[in-house]
Amino acid sequence: MRAVDVIENKKCGLIHTKEEINFFIDGYLKGKIQDYQMSAWLMAVCLNGLNFDETAYLTEAFVNSGDILHFDGIEGHIADKHSTGGVGDKVTLVLIPILASLGVNCAKLSGRGLGMTGGTIDKLESIPGFNTALSEIDFKNQIKSIGAAISSQTPNLVPADGRIYALRDVTATVDNMSLICASVVSKKIASGADVIVLDVKYGSGAFIKTKEKAKELSDLMIKVGALFNRKIDAVISSMEQPLGKSVGNSLEVIEAIEFLKGHLTYDLYEVTLEIAAKTLILSGIAPDFNAAKKMFDSSILTGAALNKLKEIISYQGGNHNVIDNYGLFDIGEYFVQIKAQSDKGYLESLDALEIAHACKLLGAGREKKSDSVDFGVGCTINKKQGDKVYEGELLMTLYYNDKRRLNDALKHAMSAFKFTSEKVEKKSIIYREN
Amino acid sequence: MRAVDVIENKKCGLIHTKEEINFFIDGYLKGKIQDYQMSAWLMAVCLNGLNFDETAYLTEAFVNSGDILHFDGIEGHIADKHSTGGVGDKVTLVLIPILASLGVNCAKLSGRGLGMTGGTIDKLESIPGFNTALSEIDFKNQIKSIGAAISSQTPNLVPADGRIYALRDVTATVDNMSLICASVVSKKIASGADVIVLDVKYGSGAFIKTKEKAKELSDLMIKVGALFNRKIDAVISSMEQPLGKSVGNSLEVIEAIEFLKGHLTYDLYEVTLEIAAKTLILSGIAPDFNAAKKMFDSSILTGAALNKLKEIISYQGGNHNVIDNYGLFDIGEYFVQIKAQSDKGYLESLDALEIAHACKLLGAGREKKSDSVDFGVGCTINKKQGDKVYEGELLMTLYYNDKRRLNDALKHAMSAFKFTSEKVEKKSIIYREN
Repeated sequence: MRAVDVIENKKCGLIHTKEEINFFIDGYLKGKIQDYQMSAWLMAVCLNGLNFDETAYLTEAFVNSGDILHFDGIEGHIADKHSTGGVGDKVTLVLIPILASLGVNCAKLSGRGLGMTGGTIDKLESIPGFNTALSEIDFKNQIKSIGAAISSQTPNLVPADGRIYALRDVTATVDNMSLICASVVSKKIASGADVIVLDVKYGSGAFIKTKEKAKELSDLMIKVGALFNRKIDAVISSMEQPLGKSVGNSLEVIEAIEFLKGHLTYDLYEVTLEIAAKTLILSGIAPDFNAAKKMFDSSILTGAALNKLKEIISYQGGNHNVIDNYGLFDIGEYFVQIKAQSDKGYLESLDALEIAHACKLLGAGREKKSDSVDFGVGCTINKKQGDKVYEGELLMTLYYNDKRRLNDALKHAMSAFKFTSEKVEKKSIIYREN
Repeated sequence: MRAVDVIENKKCGLIHTKEEINFFIDGYLKGKIQDYQMSAWLMAVCLNGLNFDETAYLTEAFVNSGDILHFDGIEGHIADKHSTGGVGDKVTLVLIPILASLGVNCAKLSGRGLGMTGGTIDKLESIPGFNTALSEIDFKNQIKSIGAAISSQTPNLVPADGRIYALRDVTATVDNMSLICASVVSKKIASGADVIVLDVKYGSGAFIKTKEKAKELSDLMIKVGALFNRKIDAVISSMEQPLGKSVGNSLEVIEAIEFLKGHLTYDLYEVTLEIAAKTLILSGIAPDFNAAKKMFDSSILTGAALNKLKEIISYQGGNHNVIDNYGLFDIGEYFVQIKAQSDKGYLESLDALEIAHACKLLGAGREKKSDSVDFGVGCTINKKQGDKVYEGELLMTLYYNDKRRLNDALKHAMSAFKFTSEKVEKKSIIYREN
């Protein structure tokens, strides 16, 4: 078999055999197939597609490209969650403490952000001392002891995806359902959890733009995941406006702590509950959504979830005093407020992508893997879609350290707000088929 | 502008601007755009195509990527010829001496073979002492003195094509009309000739398989070439069976010498005459095909063309005694004859690709640029399509030095012959639209 023939087959729209896919992925990892051959194949896949079987073979080849975690000594189910990514997405920071406080073992492996804003690992690193690089043994021991651990993926976990994702990012081959499925599902399978809930986001601030595409991806990932004998489900949620009321690393951790203290933002509550309920049901802990909701609410009301977060922070070497003293966080030295210059009527939309652009310009995200992230910058948001806005009211606050790109950031932030004189209905961000 | 956006545009089927194409080609040559980005774009081009304007922009970007030759001090037209490549294609070796003997200035830049058998440069190097690496000044001076020179392309001539072709070869992105057009036409334009005749080959032994595709490519190249103010025409010819009666480097040079001595093979005569006639007409030397044919025939009959070949060989440092003493050529130490084991009826077809495979296995071609070529190996062919074959008659002779791959080569060679009991009509290899 030759790499060029495999590429030719996909270019001609033929269906790959399992052997072809294994040959191609394995050859790539062993350096026998070059980046330029992989990227040509990826483009052929984007344009001619992979069918279900090919997608499953690719996912399996990804899983087998590296280590697979096992949690043999731990009783009960092991749960994991994955979001396809969005602006202000701090769901993991509130979900894991809640689930762990309700007796679900959470083995959460997360990534750093590459794109607009930081990833979960970046956010956690804004907590002074927090260690996100747990060894496999420490990771498992922590789950055994306190029911949850959040760590960054090791390079040995699905190395095929790591290398191929980096290539997709620079060759315009990201937005293909099969490639996304193989990337996401393989990581969750290799992570060893047996209960997996995916949060598939769509809209301006997500890389999937329509709910139809999100549904298609969700169905595909559930079907492929099931082949690996996992309990797997997915939530489809809108990412038209940022999730919650903050974007930026420290700012989002503070919002998560506030949430666990009972200061809920409705959209963050809605999506976190949906994911938690599915996890509790798949784990056999809650019989149905209503029961799950009761457990969820009480874990916040009793402070159990907040305590669990404190425990996780302490266990991973972080300063748990951040929970009561936000002054311990690195927050941008300067801030600028954006206020309504007149009565604006209703906020029709708040473009997540523009807000993300603004935060990225201030340093909240990274363009290259090697870039560092400025934990303290970002924004807090005071008005969301459907809110009435009067003259002088605060729309948002930008936190920054370096004013050189502030004007650009302000332009993006301001252009995110679209107003209308008509009353606007607030919509649920959860997409449900009728 | 970012490379990834240009790739994305072509993936989405958008039309590139001239600026986008210049940015992409220029960025690639300057190392700002990587091989893996170029190959992803090439695949997107193969699947979504380039329109006429984009193809013209690409060709122009290729031309401008390196040096452009000028022949200011030379009187009259400067002619060049290009073949899209075939098995046993020694047209250049007979065409250039004929044209030069008829007063056409021939500035022929050729390539080495990459694929099944050697290229024109490899063939010429089988002549002891022949220098194929002329400096620009020597190249021009030789044309001034004797009306013809044949040299290998310098790396400074269309460097974009050199690098991109190597990439296309290993990423299954060769067979796209626009990419082929840009590659061929840019080299001919940069070579400085103002009369250009292309030989577009189709069939088993060519990389274009059908005459329809050959016609499409031919039309495209003529149309793009005309944008650069060149007199350009094309011949479309079949490459189902090898051209002439030999394949291999020394063997083909010997056949070319024999041809110029008047021992013509019909198909080689047919295609060489067609190209020569078009060149003579475009150069204003012959008024029409019939006049051109008369000139062509007399240049062979009078020995003028053979003398011109001798002159070219001498001028480029080669031993011109090869013309009378074929023993000076390196010829395979061993040979094996393939004979008909029974009365076979008629030769229905003689698969050029299988013959090429056989010769490649014996060492006549190269797989990688760095491979060396064995000048002495190859085959001579005694029966061609349409010939009647009786028991015991010689079909072909394989010449070899290394017997390790002889059995494989024999298998390919023998499988090339397909017989039938029905009488088979000999067809012209020139494709003409009605």
